[in-house]
Amino acid sequence: MSDQRLREGARAFAQKVFDDIKAFSIDPVIGVSRQGYGPLENRAHEYLKDIARELDLEIKVDRCGNLFLTLPGTDRSLPSYMTGSHADSVPQGGHYDGLAGVVAAITTLWWMRKIGFTPKRDVTMVVFRMEESSWFGKAYVGSLAMAGQLTQEDLALKHRDKDQTLAEAIKEAGFDPQDMVKTEPSIDFSRIAAFTELHIEQGPTLDSQDKARVGIVTGIRGNLRHKTCLCIGQTAHSGAVDKQYRHDAVMAMGDLLMRMERHWAEWLVRGEDLVFTVGVFKTAASSAIAIIPGEVSFSVDMRSLSMDTLDRFHKLLVAEANAVGADRGVTFEFDRTLVCKAADVDKALFSHLHDAAQKAGITVMDVPSGAGHDAAVMADMGVPITMVFVANQDGSHNPHEKMKMDDFMLGTEVLFTAIATYD
Amino acid sequence: MSDQRLREGARAFAQKVFDDIKAFSIDPVIGVSRQGYGPLENRAHEYLKDIARELDLEIKVDRCGNLFLTLPGTDRSLPSYMTGSHADSVPQGGHYDGLAGVVAAITTLWWMRKIGFTPKRDVTMVVFRMEESSWFGKAYVGSLAMAGQLTQEDLALKHRDKDQTLAEAIKEAGFDPQDMVKTEPSIDFSRIAAFTELHIEQGPTLDSQDKARVGIVTGIRGNLRHKTCLCIGQTAHSGAVDKQYRHDAVMAMGDLLMRMERHWAEWLVRGEDLVFTVGVFKTAASSAIAIIPGEVSFSVDMRSLSMDTLDRFHKLLVAEANAVGADRGVTFEFDRTLVCKAADVDKALFSHLHDAAQKAGITVMDVPSGAGHDAAVMADMGVPITMVFVANQDGSHNPHEKMKMDDFMLGTEVLFTAIATYD
Repeated sequence: MSDQRLREGARAFAQKVFDDIKAFSIDPVIGVSRQGYGPLENRAHEYLKDIARELDLEIKVDRCGNLFLTLPGTDRSLPSYMTGSHADSVPQGGHYDGLAGVVAAITTLWWMRKIGFTPKRDVTMVVFRMEESSWFGKAYVGSLAMAGQLTQEDLALKHRDKDQTLAEAIKEAGFDPQDMVKTEPSIDFSRIAAFTELHIEQGPTLDSQDKARVGIVTGIRGNLRHKTCLCIGQTAHSGAVDKQYRHDAVMAMGDLLMRMERHWAEWLVRGEDLVFTVGVFKTAASSAIAIIPGEVSFSVDMRSLSMDTLDRFHKLLVAEANAVGADRGVTFEFDRTLVCKAADVDKALFSHLHDAAQKAGITVMDVPSGAGHDAAVMADMGVPITMVFVANQDGSHNPHEKMKMDDFMLGTEVLFTAIATYD
Repeated sequence: MSDQRLREGARAFAQKVFDDIKAFSIDPVIGVSRQGYGPLENRAHEYLKDIARELDLEIKVDRCGNLFLTLPGTDRSLPSYMTGSHADSVPQGGHYDGLAGVVAAITTLWWMRKIGFTPKRDVTMVVFRMEESSWFGKAYVGSLAMAGQLTQEDLALKHRDKDQTLAEAIKEAGFDPQDMVKTEPSIDFSRIAAFTELHIEQGPTLDSQDKARVGIVTGIRGNLRHKTCLCIGQTAHSGAVDKQYRHDAVMAMGDLLMRMERHWAEWLVRGEDLVFTVGVFKTAASSAIAIIPGEVSFSVDMRSLSMDTLDRFHKLLVAEANAVGADRGVTFEFDRTLVCKAADVDKALFSHLHDAAQKAGITVMDVPSGAGHDAAVMADMGVPITMVFVANQDGSHNPHEKMKMDDFMLGTEVLFTAIATYD
């Protein structure tokens, strides 16, 4: 079979997996909805097991419902090379967030079987349960449970729009909630030599140019967040109080935002990795057209590959808030600082991915991962990780999310080559 | 009776009126609540009629419920000098907004009776009904109805927190709603030579210094407003989308606000009268900590003594919004422009007030009126108007509103002197 025919075959196989899973995941209103530990995530797992049986792969499910499909290597004493992603989606989401990594992994295994390639070490595809936080407010439920890091508190979380706890959803999916919160990991992480997750980029960097449609991830950004902060000024009559007597909370926020945006731009110029977002900004419920606003509540979300950058930018935010407060006679109240650690990619594995791309003749670009991924949990458990990103359109976590199969196949070929040439 | 004894008597009289009306107006929760066309506004009117009988004043009530108490002059063919304000309050408001002008007027008449002074022309005190818009959303209901400018649409307005229309409230107060919407004025405005309204300032200008505790109003600011405008950007993942790819609606608003604030400061330096307020600023209901905000709704309120200033500042706002839109890839949508005309004070009457203050030995300061007043309706009907402002503390339209009786008596003496020396 020629390389060209093989590529066409792999593409047709991947397309069919996308189409089949999409077919049973269509949301009645728009997009696809495959809730973690819901019947359609279950169905996707069953569908993948069927393929695994056709490809003669070993099938395992851990006590948390995560699925492992293994193509045994020639030396089974070696720790495995693992790849995969999650099969759940956000409510009314797109077809590719999570699923692209699952389809790339199964296509890699299909490819190996097709060419009769037996790797030295086991190649294991993992399908994580419930990565998306949109349903119960908690991200990485499947991988965290696998790592022994899920808590009883997490099990009590409520479904976004029905009267159901996470524990109840897990039970309904056929698993025991108490198995989810054991502190012992459900698998032996020391038996994983490397983990590579393929994912759509979810941002525009790759898609904004034509040279490299595949990214090698430089790290997974950590984040430092405040859920609800306050800017307190003084309400007053919008007509009767002149400029010099005002303590306008909206104007103070505008000042703070522009100061932070200028710093942000400067930090980027000097090479720091950083994004800064005030996603929620609301004047008080009693705010009105003819009242100088005396209160704004707002959220803060800053992300970087470097926790040190976040720490320093956060200090700068507080310092500038104090300066604005002194200038304008307003006060700022920051609530609890929520921190999510950044995950480093393994340097050797990162180089190996670049080598693999070169071998495959595919141009790649280094990109940070702004969003979090199950790969971060794997890194936290001491597994050397890398990620492969595929250019995509129209963001993610929305029904309009798009991805081109040409780009997906380039990413899959980098993944295949990296695994096939690892030893 | 010495001047000193007379002043003490006038002050005691005014204090008793304030106290008596306050006593029956206390809100069960906080502050005072005297709704226009409500039982307590009625009671205030009845209370003032009782005083009028004691002072032997003529009592008239127009078809809209506005109260007129007249001290007849020696030449009753001359048009009258009118003074007064409104006796309603906002819900849980203060003791002085509106009522100060009512008490100053009745104290002026008490004073004239006390010294046996008979003016050349009639001096008429007016007590307007329902000036405050907080109850039914419409300001100047009493004076507009008197001017033949209230509409059937206005009568259908709903009470802020109960199932009652304005028409029903008026009926309950003992008046016929259909009498309120006749296009013929309820009084002959050509029979008013001058109108002077005393009011608390509602802003900090007078109270921020000690030299002049009384203000002579230079004009009533007009306003140009937008109730709900939109800034539309693009929602995206807060971690996955770098700075250069963002269309962040909150940042765009921060930019626009700071641009407008800089212009505003420059316009003030070059002598324009202007205030600018974005009182409501809200990200979309679906906004979240981890989403770059794609939509902000906001209000705009700008006020000036000069409608030309407002028109030019509004054009600048739209131009800057377009510039921000081009810079940041966002769009702005401005809803219907709502305009409320500024009211000029009568130049001759303004000079007369200054002369009166000088005669009384009271230092005054020129101040604009940022808020609207019934005086603006009088001006619109062709009556020469002026206003006297009294320094007050803690703003207005809130239960913490304060005023010092020393300052009030200075303002009342300016009013008394202006009326007594008019002819």
